[in-house]
Order: sequence, then C-alpha cells, then structure tokens
Amino acid sequence: MTEYHRPDSKTLQSLKDIANQLRIDSINATTASKSGHPTSCASAAEIMSVLFFNTMKYSIEKPRDPRSDRFIMSKGHAAPVLYAAWAEAGLFPVKDLLNLRKIDNDLEGHPTPRLNFIDVATGSLGQGLGIAAGMAYTGKYFDKSDYRVYCMVGDGESAEGSIWEALSFSSHYKLDNLVAIFDVNRLGQSDPAMLQHEMTVYEDRLKAFGWNTYVVDGHDVEVLCKTFYLASTVKDKPTCILAKTFKGKGCPGVEDLMNWHGKPLGDKADSCIKEIQGQMQNQPPWNLRPQCITASVPDVNLANMKLAEPPKYSMGQQVATRLAYGTALEKLGRANPRVVALDGDTKNSTFSDKFRVAFPDRFIECYIAEQNLVAVGIGCACRDRNVVFCSTFAAFFTRAFDQIRMGAISQTNVNFAGSHAGISIGEDGPSQMALEDLAMFRSIPGSTVFYPSDAVSAERAVEIAANTKGVCFIRTSRPNVPVIYSADEVFQPGKAKVVRQSDNDQVTVIGCCVTLVEAMTAADELASSGINIRVIDPFTLKPFDKDTVLASAKATGGRIITVEDHYEWGGLGDVVAGALSEEKGICIKKLAVKEVPRSGKAAELMEMFGISASCIVKAVKTMTGN
Amino acid sequence: MTEYHRPDSKTLQSLKDIANQLRIDSINATTASKSGHPTSCASAAEIMSVLFFNTMKYSIEKPRDPRSDRFIMSKGHAAPVLYAAWAEAGLFPVKDLLNLRKIDNDLEGHPTPRLNFIDVATGSLGQGLGIAAGMAYTGKYFDKSDYRVYCMVGDGESAEGSIWEALSFSSHYKLDNLVAIFDVNRLGQSDPAMLQHEMTVYEDRLKAFGWNTYVVDGHDVEVLCKTFYLASTVKDKPTCILAKTFKGKGCPGVEDLMNWHGKPLGDKADSCIKEIQGQMQNQPPWNLRPQCITASVPDVNLANMKLAEPPKYSMGQQVATRLAYGTALEKLGRANPRVVALDGDTKNSTFSDKFRVAFPDRFIECYIAEQNLVAVGIGCACRDRNVVFCSTFAAFFTRAFDQIRMGAISQTNVNFAGSHAGISIGEDGPSQMALEDLAMFRSIPGSTVFYPSDAVSAERAVEIAANTKGVCFIRTSRPNVPVIYSADEVFQPGKAKVVRQSDNDQVTVIGCCVTLVEAMTAADELASSGINIRVIDPFTLKPFDKDTVLASAKATGGRIITVEDHYEWGGLGDVVAGALSEEKGICIKKLAVKEVPRSGKAAELMEMFGISASCIVKAVKTMTGN
Repeated sequence: MTEYHRPDSKTLQSLKDIANQLRIDSINATTASKSGHPTSCASAAEIMSVLFFNTMKYSIEKPRDPRSDRFIMSKGHAAPVLYAAWAEAGLFPVKDLLNLRKIDNDLEGHPTPRLNFIDVATGSLGQGLGIAAGMAYTGKYFDKSDYRVYCMVGDGESAEGSIWEALSFSSHYKLDNLVAIFDVNRLGQSDPAMLQHEMTVYEDRLKAFGWNTYVVDGHDVEVLCKTFYLASTVKDKPTCILAKTFKGKGCPGVEDLMNWHGKPLGDKADSCIKEIQGQMQNQPPWNLRPQCITASVPDVNLANMKLAEPPKYSMGQQVATRLAYGTALEKLGRANPRVVALDGDTKNSTFSDKFRVAFPDRFIECYIAEQNLVAVGIGCACRDRNVVFCSTFAAFFTRAFDQIRMGAISQTNVNFAGSHAGISIGEDGPSQMALEDLAMFRSIPGSTVFYPSDAVSAERAVEIAANTKGVCFIRTSRPNVPVIYSADEVFQPGKAKVVRQSDNDQVTVIGCCVTLVEAMTAADELASSGINIRVIDPFTLKPFDKDTVLASAKATGGRIITVEDHYEWGGLGDVVAGALSEEKGICIKKLAVKEVPRSGKAAELMEMFGISASCIVKAVKTMTGN
Repeated sequence: MTEYHRPDSKTLQSLKDIANQLRIDSINATTASKSGHPTSCASAAEIMSVLFFNTMKYSIEKPRDPRSDRFIMSKGHAAPVLYAAWAEAGLFPVKDLLNLRKIDNDLEGHPTPRLNFIDVATGSLGQGLGIAAGMAYTGKYFDKSDYRVYCMVGDGESAEGSIWEALSFSSHYKLDNLVAIFDVNRLGQSDPAMLQHEMTVYEDRLKAFGWNTYVVDGHDVEVLCKTFYLASTVKDKPTCILAKTFKGKGCPGVEDLMNWHGKPLGDKADSCIKEIQGQMQNQPPWNLRPQCITASVPDVNLANMKLAEPPKYSMGQQVATRLAYGTALEKLGRANPRVVALDGDTKNSTFSDKFRVAFPDRFIECYIAEQNLVAVGIGCACRDRNVVFCSTFAAFFTRAFDQIRMGAISQTNVNFAGSHAGISIGEDGPSQMALEDLAMFRSIPGSTVFYPSDAVSAERAVEIAANTKGVCFIRTSRPNVPVIYSADEVFQPGKAKVVRQSDNDQVTVIGCCVTLVEAMTAADELASSGINIRVIDPFTLKPFDKDTVLASAKATGGRIITVEDHYEWGGLGDVVAGALSEEKGICIKKLAVKEVPRSGKAAELMEMFGISASCIVKAVKTMTGN
C-alpha cells in the first residue's frame, strides 16, 4: 500500500467545487422534473465528489468494467447526485440531467440497471449493503481481485434490519474491501431519524458489529480523502465511515430543516443555486479525472452451463426433489467453476450441503438471515461474475420478497431453490410450510417458476435455471417421490409432460410433484372402475404450457382438475384458470389448501386438506357425474 | 419495588428439578412423535423453570388473562419445553405431551394460538421479539399496566435483521417492561451460530442498541432468579439476559455437539433420561406454583367500531383514496379509544399522519423497519387489546411478507393499509410501485383484500376492516380520483357495485380505483360510438363477488375485461378467472402490467403499460368485433 499523500490545495478546492456542482445539478434536475429528492442529494455531495474524483478506480469508457471499483447508492432516492457524478465525470452531457424522471429517459426516479453505470436497482431502502457485501465477497474470495466496493447508506434506512444482517455478515467474512458510508443527515421523510446526530451511538453499534469505523464531518473533502485512504489500509475488517452531514446542506432556509424530504426546491431553487455558486472557485470542465483501474480479474464464462453428468436414477426409485436439487447443484458446480451456492443455515435440509462438501470455497453460509442471503446472492451475480443459487425453506423466501421484487428491477439472474413446499412436510406445522411461494414468485416479472415432479426433472430444472435470464425459482418437496422420467428425457420451460393418457380420458388432472403422485394413484383407482383420466405435469408454472393443457382439456370434455400443495390463491389453479381465461367451454375445478393447516403426518394432511388421491377420485366422479 | 430475597434452598432445588423434568418431558414428547427439537429445549430448561415457577405472574385458570405477564417463545422449535412448562404448572396433564405433533392434537410442532396459552405463532425465526415489543408498548403506554413481557430468542435467530429492528425500537421507546432472554446455546441447525459463545460480543451489541444487559450462566437457576428480579428494577431501558447455555444440556453424547438439531434422541433417549433423573431430588407434584397476578388493566371493548361521522364529499370531488384512509382513521379513532395506528416514516404520504395529529398518544412511529412495523402491530393486537392499523407504501409490505404470513397462523386481526399502488404513482419509478401486493395479500388464508375505488368506499373499507377478523389489507392509490358514491352508500365485503350499465351492454369491464376511472372514461367514449359496456367495482377482491360478476357476464355475452394497476400474475384478472373457473362460456381478457415499469407521468405510464381508457376501448372493440 502506498503512503498517503494529502491532495494539494488545488485538488481539494476542485473537490469542494465539484461537490457544490453536484448540488446544483441535483437542484436543477429535480426542479425540471418537479419531483425528487434534492436535499438528500445535498447531504451526500462531498462524499460523492471525493469518491468519484479522488478515491474510486473506474472507467468512464466502460462503467461496468469487472476490474473497476463498485459503488452502490443504497439510499436510492439520492439518484440525482449519483447521475450528476457520472455526468460531471464525463459519461454523458450534464444537460441530460434535466431529463430526470421523464418517460423517454433512463434517468429514473431511483436508479435501475437500464443505465449502463448502475449495477442494481435501489429505492426500497436497506438493500444496497447486502448486495455490496455480495460484490465484496466475490471480489475477495472468487475473483481474488483488488477492486473495492463502496456503498452509501442513509441514516434513515439504517433502521432496516437488513442493514444489520449485512453488517454482521461482512465482518464475519472479513470483507476488508468493503466500505460503507453512512450519510447521517439526521432527517427522515416524516420525522427526524431515530438517532438523529448521535454519532457515538452509531459508532458503538458499528464497532460492536465488528467494523472498523471513522466518524467524520461528511462535508469536509480533505477528511474524506484521508479517511477513504485509511480504510484501504485496514486488513480483515470492513470499514464504515460515519459521516455527519446536513440534509439540504448549502441551501438557505432548507438545510437541516424538516418538511423538505422528496421535494424540489421550487421558488427557493434560484437563490439556493446562487448561494452555492458563491462558494465555488472553479467551474467545469474539471481538472480532475477518475483514478485509473489497477485491479485485474479472471475471465469467466457463464454460457452453456451443463450438468457434469446426466441424472442417474432407476424408474420408480424414491427420491425427494430437494435431494435431487443438491445432487444437480454439485454436478453443475463440477462442470462450471463460477457456480456458487448460498444457504441460510438449512443446507442439510435443502441439500445444498452436497455442493458445500464438494466445493467449500464456492459455498457461502449466510446464517439465518434470508434478506441478506438474497441480497448477497444478487451481489455475487452482478456484472455476470457468477451463476448463483440461493436455497432455504421455500416458506422463508417470503422474508425476502422485497429483495426478490427489487431483484427483478435489478435484472438479476439469481436462482432460488425453496425446499419443504406445502403441507407434505408433515409434523413441523404451518410455520415451516410454503403455501404462498408460488403466488409470490409468479408475481415477479420475467420470472421462471419450476415445480419439478421427480428427481430427473429436478436436476434438469437446476441446469435450465443456470442458463435462464431473470429470477428463477425451483420449488422442491420434502417427501420422497418416485422417479417417473428416464435420464434422457428433455425438459424445457413452458413445456408440460402428459404422464398418463388414453383414448377416452374424461378429465384432465394437473398436479406437481407430491400431487402428481396423488393424481397418478387416483388415475389407477379410477381406471379400475372404468374411468380414464389424463394426467399432466406442467414442469414450469411460469411460463405455462397453455397449448398442451388446452389440447388436453378439449380432449377431455373441457374438464380440468388442478391439485396443488399450495393455498388456493395464486397457485397452480389460478395459473391454469388465468392461462385459459379467454377460452370458452372449459371448466376448471381447483383442489388446493384453503385454510391454515396444522401438524400431522403428510398423508393425513393431504387427506384432511383435500389434495389426496381420494379427493381427486371424488372430484373426478363429481365432475363426470359418475 | 420490593427488595430481592434469594429463594430458599428448597425452592432452588425445586427449580433445578423442574428444569430437569422439562428436559425429560421434551425428550419423551419428541421421542413419541419421532420428530422435533429436544436439544433446543434442553438449553432453555432452567430459563423456563425460573420464568414459569418463580418470576412470571400469570394464571393457570385463564392463560390469556390480560393482566398477566406475557411470554413469547420466539425460537418456536423449542415448543416442547414451552408445552411442558404449562403442563408441569398444571394447565393440562403431563401425559398429553406425548400427543405432540399428532394431527388430532393442538400441541403442534411449533406453537400456534390454537392452544389457549399461546398468543402468537412462532417458528419462522426472528419474529417474536417485535411482537413482544408491541405487547410491551401496549402494556406501558396503552394499558398503563404493570404486567411484563418476556421473550426467548435463540442465538441462531438473532442473525435475523428483524431482531435488531425490534431491539432498536424497544430501547427507543424505553420499554422497561420487556425482557429478552437470548438462549446462546452456540449451535445452529447446520453449523455453529456465527458468534458461538462470544458472550461479550453479544453484550457489546445489545448495549450499543440501548439495552440493559446481563451475561449469565443460563443453567444456574439462582442467578436467573436474581437477574430477572434485577431486570424488574431497571427504569427506561429494556433488559436482555444473555444466557450462556449448551444445546442438549444434560444429555451425554449429545450436549454441545453438532448434528443434533431437530432430532429426537432415539436410542439415546433412555440413557439421557436416566442421567437427568440422577440429578433430581424431587419429583412432581411440585411444591411451587406460579406467582399470582398483581397488575390491573382497563376494560376495553373492540366491538362495533364506527366512524365518528359519515364520509363527507360531493359527487365528483377529486380525492385520493390514501387521503380518505387518513380521514377515516381519524374518525375511527375519535369514536373508539382503543384504535391505534402505526407507520414506517411514511405517515405524510399514507396520511396516517391525520391520526397522529389527532391522537399522538395512540400513534407509534416505527421508522423505516417494515418487518418490525408489522410485528409490533401484531403484538399490539394480541389478547384483543387494540384495533390496529399499520400503514406504509403497499410495495414495502413485501418486506414483511413472512410476518404477515405468520400473522395469519397467529390469528391476528391487524389491518394493513398500503398506499402508492401501481404505476399510477408516476415519476418515483418501479421500486416504489406496488405491483405484487394483491397477489401477496390474497395468498394469506382468511384475509380480506379491500381495493376501494373512491373516497367514500375507502372510508367504509377502514370501518369494515376494523370490525373484520383476520388480516385485512386496504390498497390505496396516490392520484386523486372522483368520488362516485354518495355518503350513505352501503358497502360489504364480497359485494361488488355495478357502476355503469344499460340494457344492451356488450362487455363487462371490471376495474378498481384508477382503472375504474379509466373504465368509465372508456364507457363514455364507447357509448358515443354506440357500444355500451357494463362497469363493475368489486370493492373487495377477497372475498370476491362472483355472483354479481357472473350475472353481468351472462348479460354481456360472456365477455369480461379486467383492468388493473398490478402485475398480471395473481391480481384482479386471476381473481376473476379463478372465481369463474368452473363456469363455461365465459371469456376473460386481462389488461394488466406485464413487465417492469419505469418513471414517467401516471397517464403516460397507464397508456404505455396497457391499462388506460384507450387500451380498454381497443380491447372492447377487439372482443366485440367492432
């Protein structure tokens, strides 16, 4: 590490001037858009100036260069100052900032990766630091590179528990390439933040969470330059710079006052700009340029992910799909060195442990903190550095719905594997049963929702997910189910399998995994009394194979029964009803869980809550008048 | 406060013996059920013994007496030791513990309020402390009573950010009637917990979060008795007892060893029980009884909640439903002293601020921590002490999906009001737009989902929600919309309103709030070209008024168009398709948002994403062949 050299006074003056220019840019942009958060930008101006014109190593030519330092604006409402920093650094004309929030421009109200200099969407608070931790983990342990990761956190958003999950994770894994900057500007949206300017309380908390800390005047560029340097010399600890700042800094009649959150300055804009300009000694073009990139990273290739070997099962073998998930993940990891897996202290239940045993260096134990599990996963996947699989009980992904929702806006490719779906887990009871997960993952735009019915299709789901853009969800089950596909069966998203059919089927029954087993049992029983049914395994619920189901429905008198180990709202039944909503002449009977279930044996529960083979038999007989 | 008297040695020995009996009971129960978590019970045995037989004031006759101390087992997998404590205290026969996890018994794998001594379901980790904080807030500030609240937290679950949200909240509000006990037994499910037995790190973190702390030997009943006493003397700070314990304590070959999480002891059970029995000097019946209740609470009546005055608007007046929410909440609060409101630093956007201004003592600012917002709300609603309304942007309730899901298992009656629904919020962009919230709240069993279309119906939604059991969700919008109902219009859940009809309607169009406005605009435009449509406002999406919609569809040639400011997966369109899935001859065209939206003006966005009046006109014309 080189020795610290205090920037010369000309440089320091330029950093001050750039900070003030960023303020002016933010005021101008939000005045033009008549909405936005200029005061939340003003508190961060010196930090942004120093980061972008003194500290960070990055490239204007290639903003997402994998070798460059990363910056995450976790307080996404300060987007204008981030846009201004890139504009003043030369990425695009400063006048374009006046297009803020317009429908035909990508300078949105909160940052999204539609912009070529943004890695992830922010704006739902408290999510940036976990993502930054995933990037830093990747930098230190996977890329083994010297690039550094910076994340600006608002004081208001530091109330989010997800921030403390990320803080805990980052010190545990000694992420000394990670710097968090808390912009402690005292004021929230509707009230002062809980701790206002109690800087020592912040410092005590951060120290207790294992971080190296500095409390600084966040408007002093010289102190900031030195502090960022000092942070770079610290080993084995992440650094948090606790910057005491003022919301609306520099704006008379606005600075440090309530009721200015999320509001343009209106008729105060001109006088504030004039006041700020009065502090400036230089104007653009600036004599400062970003630091050059010095880090290097290994080449990675995430294309054409394949299992190292095909599924190996005998037909009828009893295998849980969660176990097949673990088996496939290990095979995928064997063939592809940039596959990484994360879990939240459930790895011996989800079977991601099979991957950990084989590739301990590519497994991240995230402990019982699902929001951070997802955020770290998203961070690891950024800039296409890794193919990421996050696993826990499917029920507990509800803990991270907001992160997953934001992940879609971030264009993430993270894959989620949720085990212990539905009431078929048995005795643990409703808190552990995923019964809303299909509704949740279906609602995510661009998502692919796999619900494999046996071990072979589960393995292929893993392989396909690794090659599929957007959020993928693989739903796995706890009980053993028979293998029904041969090893060379070919699967595709949106392609259903007809697993049972005859020339005179009277009803189409659609089930997945445990309920597909029940459907096949029902088919046998019904066949013995002379009623044939067609049985379909959708493989993916999204995309959904409308064509196969419609053709089957037409062949079975328009009669469909769906049977699912999920609540009746938003799952398989609604998928089918929604997909066929424009088709007349179809009648869909939905068998699903309709109330909070309870502890019991899986078979007892499936009977009690109406999704067993006998329930299917009864529904078929009712529907066909038998 | 009385002076501390050390329990006599006979009492101490009994407390030790009871602790060991709780261990034995837990082993026996999980051995009988062949599943469960005896080792997680064993670490907590002395804490449970001292709480239930020395410290807590409660009633076996009336386990949910509002005057009694509360206990929340946040580490819900330790359910058997909790059940054993109540059984040994005399609530039910100890032999009933052998029915653990059976389908015909309420002693489920994790606690639920099906049992008369359980306030809330636990089992999804990290949720108990926020609920306990809501109970403690109610005790101190609403009931102004002396009852105390105890919450046992596992060390593994303390990785959950929700714990740190609750810790932060509790010290901020000086909840000195709250005691958290961290059962630091070192071992998680699949690995040791992050901090293992680093008790000073725990203490530093808790102190930094503003808590009074004690680090103790969690297996020493004498120390525990004194520490709980000391906690009761501390003013203005909540207390955390950091109990160093051992998982599987007392069980040779099991204690403090990995790979014993969530497993009955099997063939080790007998030898372990024998070993534990060897430590005991007394057997049941015990010479100790619970402490008598000394606190008193005010009588409360939560029945027949009414607005203090009816809605007051003129027809056609432009009012945002979020504003009407705030107006109604104030009116409800005026008439009913036990209505309380919570918000997460968005009160000036959700308009819950109108309630705060009127009733500052009944408003809880929860800051930007939505998981805790929901958990505290659930705690406040427990034992029917308050009618609770929690508000934030609807998008941010996704942050608390797991808490809401568990709330349903907890049989909570909390009401959630989510503002800023959909793309009609405009420039802030997708991170702030709720587009999955209907899918989420619909998936909750027993939920009621209100989507009021004007200010009058929004006010009535608040009033109805206050009187409705289960989770209620009221979705409100940012833009002004015209008042379309008179003040005396009567609303009911599951009763739609036909807001436009003629004798020759060709299509039924269903919209809500902003899209109902678009539908009516489309109706006008279509009427001018000779095409009449029927327009329906569902008022609630769950329950859904199938009868009205079906009758309307039949009157309009089976043609339905749904139009919603929500993603197409799991919202209004799927509700209608799902509700009518068994009806043949119906064709439902769904207009909804189908991809990640962006910043822009509301009207521009509604046009771009296909839910504007012009899109409806086009769909009607296509559907009718015009």
